[in-house]
Amino acid sequence: MTAAPGPAGLLLRRLGIDTYQEPVAYLRSDCPVCKSEGFESRSRIEIWRGDAHIVATLNVVHDELIDKNQLGLSEAAWRALGGEEGAALRVGHARPLLSLSSVRAKIYGRPLGAEAAAAIMRDVAEGRYSDIEMAALITACSGDRVDLAETIALTEAMVAVGQRLDWPRDMVLDKHCVGGLPGNRTSLLVVPIVAACGLTIPKTSSRAITSPAGTADAMGTLAPVELDIPAMRRVVEREGGCIVWGGAVSLSPADDLLIRVERPLGLDSDGLLVASVLSKKVAAGSNHVLIDMPVGRTAKVRSEQAAHALTRRFRGVGEALGIAVDVMLSDGSQPVGRGIGPALEARDALAVLRGAADAPADLRQRAIQLAARLLELGGKAAPGHGLSLAASTLDSGAAWRKLRAICTAQGGMREPPRADYTQVVAALHGGRLIAIDNRRLARLAKLAGAPKAPAAGLELHRPLGSQLEAGEPLLTLHAESPGELAYAAAYAAAQDTLFTIQEAG
Amino acid sequence: MTAAPGPAGLLLRRLGIDTYQEPVAYLRSDCPVCKSEGFESRSRIEIWRGDAHIVATLNVVHDELIDKNQLGLSEAAWRALGGEEGAALRVGHARPLLSLSSVRAKIYGRPLGAEAAAAIMRDVAEGRYSDIEMAALITACSGDRVDLAETIALTEAMVAVGQRLDWPRDMVLDKHCVGGLPGNRTSLLVVPIVAACGLTIPKTSSRAITSPAGTADAMGTLAPVELDIPAMRRVVEREGGCIVWGGAVSLSPADDLLIRVERPLGLDSDGLLVASVLSKKVAAGSNHVLIDMPVGRTAKVRSEQAAHALTRRFRGVGEALGIAVDVMLSDGSQPVGRGIGPALEARDALAVLRGAADAPADLRQRAIQLAARLLELGGKAAPGHGLSLAASTLDSGAAWRKLRAICTAQGGMREPPRADYTQVVAALHGGRLIAIDNRRLARLAKLAGAPKAPAAGLELHRPLGSQLEAGEPLLTLHAESPGELAYAAAYAAAQDTLFTIQEAG
Repeated sequence: MTAAPGPAGLLLRRLGIDTYQEPVAYLRSDCPVCKSEGFESRSRIEIWRGDAHIVATLNVVHDELIDKNQLGLSEAAWRALGGEEGAALRVGHARPLLSLSSVRAKIYGRPLGAEAAAAIMRDVAEGRYSDIEMAALITACSGDRVDLAETIALTEAMVAVGQRLDWPRDMVLDKHCVGGLPGNRTSLLVVPIVAACGLTIPKTSSRAITSPAGTADAMGTLAPVELDIPAMRRVVEREGGCIVWGGAVSLSPADDLLIRVERPLGLDSDGLLVASVLSKKVAAGSNHVLIDMPVGRTAKVRSEQAAHALTRRFRGVGEALGIAVDVMLSDGSQPVGRGIGPALEARDALAVLRGAADAPADLRQRAIQLAARLLELGGKAAPGHGLSLAASTLDSGAAWRKLRAICTAQGGMREPPRADYTQVVAALHGGRLIAIDNRRLARLAKLAGAPKAPAAGLELHRPLGSQLEAGEPLLTLHAESPGELAYAAAYAAAQDTLFTIQEAG
Repeated sequence: MTAAPGPAGLLLRRLGIDTYQEPVAYLRSDCPVCKSEGFESRSRIEIWRGDAHIVATLNVVHDELIDKNQLGLSEAAWRALGGEEGAALRVGHARPLLSLSSVRAKIYGRPLGAEAAAAIMRDVAEGRYSDIEMAALITACSGDRVDLAETIALTEAMVAVGQRLDWPRDMVLDKHCVGGLPGNRTSLLVVPIVAACGLTIPKTSSRAITSPAGTADAMGTLAPVELDIPAMRRVVEREGGCIVWGGAVSLSPADDLLIRVERPLGLDSDGLLVASVLSKKVAAGSNHVLIDMPVGRTAKVRSEQAAHALTRRFRGVGEALGIAVDVMLSDGSQPVGRGIGPALEARDALAVLRGAADAPADLRQRAIQLAARLLELGGKAAPGHGLSLAASTLDSGAAWRKLRAICTAQGGMREPPRADYTQVVAALHGGRLIAIDNRRLARLAKLAGAPKAPAAGLELHRPLGSQLEAGEPLLTLHAESPGELAYAAAYAAAQDTLFTIQEAG
């Protein structure tokens, strides 16, 4: 059964209300179609403009904000539907969301089959899931609730609803960090090193989900990242690599939509994580993927046991989908580099590329290790010789030239912005810095405004193991507004578990 | 840490936008406080009007719908905060929702302790959970994921955040049906029978969660049900019983809020179900509760095994909270009475009370059985004599007089409304009616507009086992709008699994 467009016509009114990413429509309670269709607030309605159509959540309006013959659209609804002020629209009840019964079945403990996963991802990609329905779906698939077979089903379902790239080469590389480690922005170094050596690495990256910055957020402070598929293809054909936002190329549109709810809930799970990462790699046409997996007590992956389970999941799904997945475990005990936040992380990467005297050595080291593995995998270095090739590509300036070339090809390079408001957080007492809580540090950078405010975040001044004096600066908060600065500073002041400083005994 | 009210003052603007029950606030993107605080769409903000305050979800407005110095409020936000157009408001970031980390821990498989449950329910009751956060909470507690200890913790936490009644009597009765069986509106009969016999039964009931009508929805077509606690107390003191909406008396405000997300998700679980029911009974001051539990393949409780597990859960939680819980299993294979929908179910109850010739015998029978158990429990009938006392209280007209007296005490009795639009659904072929899908039937009544449209729903014409001719009326759809009637009729036409009619072989 498909709901047919209602008989009454309505006129588009862009209301300019930003409801985040959920499309919302506004109708007057006394408008004829509202009455005849029995619409009420939170009805899910389908809106047609010619052949274009979207599903939106209805908010009934009891005031004269809009006319009786108008249908108001939130910004997300207007972007999705398109059209101009006054365009003719038709509306009807959205068809029942049948795939939600598979979500309910999953909640009640029944496994998610391939058909159910496909139906769910089709509906998600078509925007048929409301935010609360997506929250239920994500929660049902979080924790340890999705097994390997279900992860394969979800990954294939995500690939099936998106576009898919292919390349006229046998070897197409990619790398991905599972995250949880603030500042670990190695892609901005690995992609230019690998591409400078003549390999193909069409990197699509995500915006932050639960972290203060994703690779796309950091790269976005250097160059445009919202490229469509033809533009991305041109960049890769010319430069061998790119760093673009995956959401813009619609490689995994269902996953892109799920993120809008994963982010505020701060939820992530092995199953959804692997499906999200690998669906995008398969869609991008990669066939060899290196996963950087930082392990640490307060990183996303907290133990070696968890790392091995996640590694098996990655390899199992990769095998089922025909791509080779290599996993590199790394130290996740403290942030990488100094900056946390889009622009601050980009600055760290630029310092390494430019060979600046104060460039963070840990970031450089990690990038070289990852690039080395890819260079060996791609046949550009013999086993055991990847590290020296990666280091020389960095030191010769070839990688720096390549990043500039990639930025230019993506639309032009710029310097990352600086925040107008900063505040130093000092050590309350002296002693040795023996632990850093990555999760709380990430939360602090988010309270300062990252990733939405690209210049916001924090700069860490001292690494683990440092001997500190009382009153010595531990970190500097960066914010784009005084309110956010004050809010982050209050959190930093109250959180004595952010840093563990052991006094000399 | 508590976020302090921002320095800048804003003026209240009631925008008349009905966002269902989630409080939403609207600020211009170019208003100074929006910039200085770094607010963005979906920020959770706290709004103060003097000492009154609420937490709301922000929608940033890029248009001139409101002035720069105004803070727009959705209807739910305005109801929760109070105040008049132009009242002075202050805003700040809502404090971080710390209890959400316990929800995340639960999602990741760790049990929910008493302290965590208490913190969650406090935050829920204070409106600090957004809809998607509530969706995650409910999903995490659905299916078989909450054990007895967690259910006790949730129940106690729900009781702790609400008001609590006490009565100057040793014996305070209540009954509750776990639902899932359309039309099972026995409370409208049981309460007057029991109260007419001199017992105390302060019944609070809920609006529909996943069904086409709750008891409060049906009673609401006969008399006001939104009584506050003093009014409810006066009714019970005078008449011995009442049937009021639990949401208005705030006996379990956390649960009342959870329902706004449970309803659209169509989720329900043993743990949340028991916590929801018993928290309200404890808060209402009842100490003896009879649970009506219909069991059937398409009822909420699908098997005897499930019924026994749920019974153990009810008894275990009752024991922990000091109330005696008695459970009566009943047949859940088909709807009770003829009507499904608030007014249609109320009409069935009135027919039984008035002794109408065509009164549904099954509804009468169930009500007598339940009332009998309560009369025996309350010491008004010797064991084995409850049935005859219940039947004679009904047949003498005493129960009918009592219901009218209760309705009068609640604010005045009225006749339930009739729908303007009806349509008959006929049997496609002849044969014996061997199965009815309660879930699809409930869905059909909801598509026709129930429970929001009180006159909407459906009337079933033939019970299970009936021999039908092709073209014979099976049911009549009732709707308050032609759109909903057409929508329900389309669903009925497409759903050949609604009724199973076995042709003579």
